[in-house]
Amino acid sequence: MPTKIALVGIGKIAVDQHVPALAASPDFTLAATISRKGEVAGVPSFTDFHAFLEACPDVPVVSLCLPPVPRFDYAEAALLAGRHVMLEKPPGATLAEVHELQALAASRGLTLYATWHSRMARAVAAAKAWLADKAVHEAHITWREDVRKWHPGQDWVFEPGGMGVFDPGINALSILTEILPQPVHLTEATLEVPANRQTPIAAQLRFTGHVTADFDWRQTGPQTWDITVETDRGPMALRMGGNVLEIAGKPVAGDADIMGEYPALYARMADLLRTRASDVDLAPMVHVADALSLGRRQTVAAFDF
Amino acid sequence: MPTKIALVGIGKIAVDQHVPALAASPDFTLAATISRKGEVAGVPSFTDFHAFLEACPDVPVVSLCLPPVPRFDYAEAALLAGRHVMLEKPPGATLAEVHELQALAASRGLTLYATWHSRMARAVAAAKAWLADKAVHEAHITWREDVRKWHPGQDWVFEPGGMGVFDPGINALSILTEILPQPVHLTEATLEVPANRQTPIAAQLRFTGHVTADFDWRQTGPQTWDITVETDRGPMALRMGGNVLEIAGKPVAGDADIMGEYPALYARMADLLRTRASDVDLAPMVHVADALSLGRRQTVAAFDF
Repeated sequence: MPTKIALVGIGKIAVDQHVPALAASPDFTLAATISRKGEVAGVPSFTDFHAFLEACPDVPVVSLCLPPVPRFDYAEAALLAGRHVMLEKPPGATLAEVHELQALAASRGLTLYATWHSRMARAVAAAKAWLADKAVHEAHITWREDVRKWHPGQDWVFEPGGMGVFDPGINALSILTEILPQPVHLTEATLEVPANRQTPIAAQLRFTGHVTADFDWRQTGPQTWDITVETDRGPMALRMGGNVLEIAGKPVAGDADIMGEYPALYARMADLLRTRASDVDLAPMVHVADALSLGRRQTVAAFDF
Repeated sequence: MPTKIALVGIGKIAVDQHVPALAASPDFTLAATISRKGEVAGVPSFTDFHAFLEACPDVPVVSLCLPPVPRFDYAEAALLAGRHVMLEKPPGATLAEVHELQALAASRGLTLYATWHSRMARAVAAAKAWLADKAVHEAHITWREDVRKWHPGQDWVFEPGGMGVFDPGINALSILTEILPQPVHLTEATLEVPANRQTPIAAQLRFTGHVTADFDWRQTGPQTWDITVETDRGPMALRMGGNVLEIAGKPVAGDADIMGEYPALYARMADLLRTRASDVDLAPMVHVADALSLGRRQTVAAFDF
């Protein structure tokens, strides 16, 4: 019997990823949506979250894919109502609020899963396994995409809490923190902030261990999501956002059986529910908070969609 | 027998606080200093930290009071050399580096103490005890001081990592997180950044639970370090940086036996060493990282010392 799940925030990421992943999931059945505007055909919809919680006591799991700033109130209300919670990335607008959610879930014996979808990309597990017994000499992230393509008109990404280019950059950091055999920490960052915006449109980061990152949201044409690593036994590269692994410059055959990122997240959530466990790794978000705290801001050309 | 301790970074805070506290400590004896420029009369001094570690294997504890940005390298080297470590506030320039130090100390069975000196102010423990069984309706921090008086010419406080007005503000947050019976998290912040600087000279913060904070580094004349709390059983105020407690508007007699802030930190370090424990509470630093991440920046008048 699939578990009933509700989806909160029927926007682009929900329609593109969550709804199809749930439609194909052997573990879950989409039992309700909660959104100010969006709906999913054939699924009971609510605009008010508390109305949903009252009307649907038989839906034990809630998946939150609305933007980070309003997310806490929904997560807290869901946990207080005894529901298990799955969080889109980043898990919140602040670190402190996620710590509160962790404590609340633990005190109630509920599952809290802070998802990082890029960690489920096809070649990430293989890259991690390959690096496990290597000495990493240096690593470099290049994460360059077109904000107009991925966040068309979404001004909130440039508002405080929207994280700017760290919205995609945190995906790279979620992979980096998953595959590196040793932790690193930020030592220096430059943040390029458009004159008319609050958050960076580009950032260059320097970590310990000769690890660097280059994030840019102004790249038109082909998009770049690469992580290259030099080790004591030669180079490794993860390309296409963690979906292609190259060892010593040659692509390694991917595992064709691996499911997509969002199906894998829901499978993981089902595992966590079975074992009554939580999974909240804040390392990617800590690096972003560190970069926004420690970074040197430079004003660059105004940006409009 | 007092334990031998070394002091790293002989600047203003070391001379004003750490050296006198150690001189009066029954637990420690100052056995060495490490500093590029400063010295303490009668105490062996080093300019190079690795030279100290080699020369003084009999000094088991190191107290770091240099600025946060260079602090990690010293803390890591000390732990790798088997020394226990005490950190001035804030415990580092990034959260990730402090997580690394925690893991390193734990793996080696060493004590790591991230100190918050304001938590040792005379009336903080009494305020915490009084609030423990109250419902907090609202709280407000007013922390206004003159940066020219407390950090004369210290440009690093306005550089990335120097935290700006959060350098004193984190003291208020260290008290707040100690005394409130429930955790809070930031929901909104305004950061006033001088046109010629990187970090804020003033900030207004809003947290959940009707908790607000007003930090300003431009106050000349009398300085203000107040926390006022409204509860279900009337108002409470902590004034003078946590040193005076008022209940319902009337000062409560302080405990004359309580030692000063820095003597209390060293007494606590001695306790931790006796029990082989660590004490690293990052809550105040998380709130600052959240504020610097989520805050809306406003450019204000240039500031020069």
